[in-house]
Amino acid sequence: MKPYSQLTKQELAAKREALVAQYEDFKRRGLKLNMTRGVPSLEQLALSSGILTCLGKDDYTAENGIDCRNYGVLDGIPEMKRIFADILELDPSEVIVGGNSSLSLMFDNISSNMSHGVRDGTPWSLQGKVKFLCPAPGYDRHFTTCDYFHIEMIPIEMTPDGPDMDTVERLVAADAMIKGMWCVPVFSNPTGAVYSDETVRRIAALKPAAPDFRLYWDNAYAIHQFSGGKRLIPNIVRECEKAGNEHMPLVFTSFSKVTFSGAAVSCMASSRSNCEFIKKRLSAQTIGPDKLRQLAHVRFLGDAQGVYAHMRKHAEILAPKFQLVGETLSARLGGLGVAEWSTPQGGYFVSFNSLPGCARRIAALCNEAGVALTPAGATYPHGKDPNDSNLRIAPTAPPIDELRTAMDVFCTAVLLASAEKLLGE
Amino acid sequence: MKPYSQLTKQELAAKREALVAQYEDFKRRGLKLNMTRGVPSLEQLALSSGILTCLGKDDYTAENGIDCRNYGVLDGIPEMKRIFADILELDPSEVIVGGNSSLSLMFDNISSNMSHGVRDGTPWSLQGKVKFLCPAPGYDRHFTTCDYFHIEMIPIEMTPDGPDMDTVERLVAADAMIKGMWCVPVFSNPTGAVYSDETVRRIAALKPAAPDFRLYWDNAYAIHQFSGGKRLIPNIVRECEKAGNEHMPLVFTSFSKVTFSGAAVSCMASSRSNCEFIKKRLSAQTIGPDKLRQLAHVRFLGDAQGVYAHMRKHAEILAPKFQLVGETLSARLGGLGVAEWSTPQGGYFVSFNSLPGCARRIAALCNEAGVALTPAGATYPHGKDPNDSNLRIAPTAPPIDELRTAMDVFCTAVLLASAEKLLGE
Repeated sequence: MKPYSQLTKQELAAKREALVAQYEDFKRRGLKLNMTRGVPSLEQLALSSGILTCLGKDDYTAENGIDCRNYGVLDGIPEMKRIFADILELDPSEVIVGGNSSLSLMFDNISSNMSHGVRDGTPWSLQGKVKFLCPAPGYDRHFTTCDYFHIEMIPIEMTPDGPDMDTVERLVAADAMIKGMWCVPVFSNPTGAVYSDETVRRIAALKPAAPDFRLYWDNAYAIHQFSGGKRLIPNIVRECEKAGNEHMPLVFTSFSKVTFSGAAVSCMASSRSNCEFIKKRLSAQTIGPDKLRQLAHVRFLGDAQGVYAHMRKHAEILAPKFQLVGETLSARLGGLGVAEWSTPQGGYFVSFNSLPGCARRIAALCNEAGVALTPAGATYPHGKDPNDSNLRIAPTAPPIDELRTAMDVFCTAVLLASAEKLLGE
Repeated sequence: MKPYSQLTKQELAAKREALVAQYEDFKRRGLKLNMTRGVPSLEQLALSSGILTCLGKDDYTAENGIDCRNYGVLDGIPEMKRIFADILELDPSEVIVGGNSSLSLMFDNISSNMSHGVRDGTPWSLQGKVKFLCPAPGYDRHFTTCDYFHIEMIPIEMTPDGPDMDTVERLVAADAMIKGMWCVPVFSNPTGAVYSDETVRRIAALKPAAPDFRLYWDNAYAIHQFSGGKRLIPNIVRECEKAGNEHMPLVFTSFSKVTFSGAAVSCMASSRSNCEFIKKRLSAQTIGPDKLRQLAHVRFLGDAQGVYAHMRKHAEILAPKFQLVGETLSARLGGLGVAEWSTPQGGYFVSFNSLPGCARRIAALCNEAGVALTPAGATYPHGKDPNDSNLRIAPTAPPIDELRTAMDVFCTAVLLASAEKLLGE
């Protein structure tokens, strides 16, 4: 097939006409398909149904004798801390177990730094306009948190190896108001990129002008590789220690995409001394997280090995969906010069780049035909993609037959929008 | 028996000698009894063991079809909102269901008002030194939250009808930096006082100088009456509406002392429009609370009537403990003029006032004899009781035999400290 850019106006107009007909066909089918968010499918949720029933009437005691039904324990029961520590290759004393949402741990940490400063230092909010480095495309909810706290977001280009480190190094060394950087180091949302070893080490060795610069290391997909097992990257906490930045990294992860998105357990990890500071705040904030939810996870998953075994079942469900997405995109868009997309080895998303100026049109066409997509632009700070080109495909939730149809609609929309664009419409 | 103040020095010295012997006897027994916190006993926790097993493998769908295992729903599933709304006599649209800790809802609301202002108004932190009215003795964790946010605490005298309203009215009308007031309106921690109808109405009709003044109405013991049922006080949300203060009250409650303190469900309630503002923040903060925990509560408790029936079982366990405390105090301290104490009809605490200057000594004597008490002073802002007189007795956790011994030790300590005091030691 010829690239669209080499077609004559007449050829393009003929294509467009055929595509409109195809598109109208889809519209008439009254579809209702959803690819907006990285949500587990029913089939995935069913993998964890045992967690609903794994605690018996008399099963409420943690290994240290703590009654999980009663008050107490700020940072998690020992066996839950150990599972997270094993997965993150850290010591349990470097781990704090939270409630069901790691997002709220990140939000709260930023809130704390804004109002009370890092490690009791000067509150960020009293130092001037706080800025964060935001590798983009990235996770929209990270950007929402920055927006909420009036933090200026500096987009950083994402490469297949992670953020553009030359720019990152230059900026953090030059500007003491750059206080943070978002990272999704493994199967990054949405590009699927895994940070290279070199990228991780360069991040760990950053020389920020701000002594209170913090790395928000959201390792949400640490164990979400389609081939099973976990994707190994250098241990950010240890690398930061080696580089003399031991208090810089704040690691977050959760079991929202391991067991139940609506009822899992989250965790943050950092230097032991950072954990002590965080626990001081926690001790004013709460009497403790839901310990029975932790105990049920321990009973159901066993240990880190049990978690990896469980994740292989997720991988068996997810791999074919991502394969279908890749195959459909290749079959229908390959060689036409109208798009590029990622081929992730894990995670929840495929990142898609259309011709510049087409993404919003593609999303609108999809929505009109009953295929809901994440809003175009959502993967950039303030929802503004400078090229209007990036779209996030979230193929996990729909059953595979629906996904096939949704991707067909998507490709038709891409081709139609591209033809319109090239015709100068 | 003669009041201690009418004893001669010699009589007092003889008393003291006998008490020291009694006290040393207790010490030799190597006791380990705990009356520090308002914690449910094992017997109470067992009442809710059904909640551990009430969800079946296929039981995860809320009445509106929401899959409680998956992401979504910021403010709670409808049936859980309805239970809280019924208990608080509000509409479900005035209720937001949280995680397991109402304390963290209060903390977060204050954090939000400090950094982002009330209803998007000027942040409290930018207006000057924020002040809160703190009826005292009161709940130490409320004071800890104020401390954490550097909020100046103004103690307000507690009467059997609630806070001294003449002072409250005068202060809030005069000072626009008074932004909040803590209230535990039913079975107040620690005095056990229930605010009178007049007090509630005067609070609702306050005319604060600060347009962004907020009432932190911690109704933790709304349904914790020893005779069963709930203690009716005027509905603060409706009373505030009538008085033109519809956005002033923020109501908090939880099931921490209904089901499991470590794994229950909390709630806040306010005007519909306040709830919308709070949900805006929530939508940046989290993808939603643990909905399976909510569903399990709904399955186990049924509805508000089911909650009241469940609370009668708690009352049957708690009433005899509070009766024992009252009887022991009367039998050993009655008529001696060395102490006063509350006789609450519900809640978790007995408030005890010794002769001025004796509370810390009593707590130290108890601790040394193996009876742990809430630190003296904890019921006052900054942990400083101006009279060094108030102690909080928390009789719920120990089994009744242990409680009897603990109260015996306590009374001996009170008498010994009083004798020492009157002897000028």
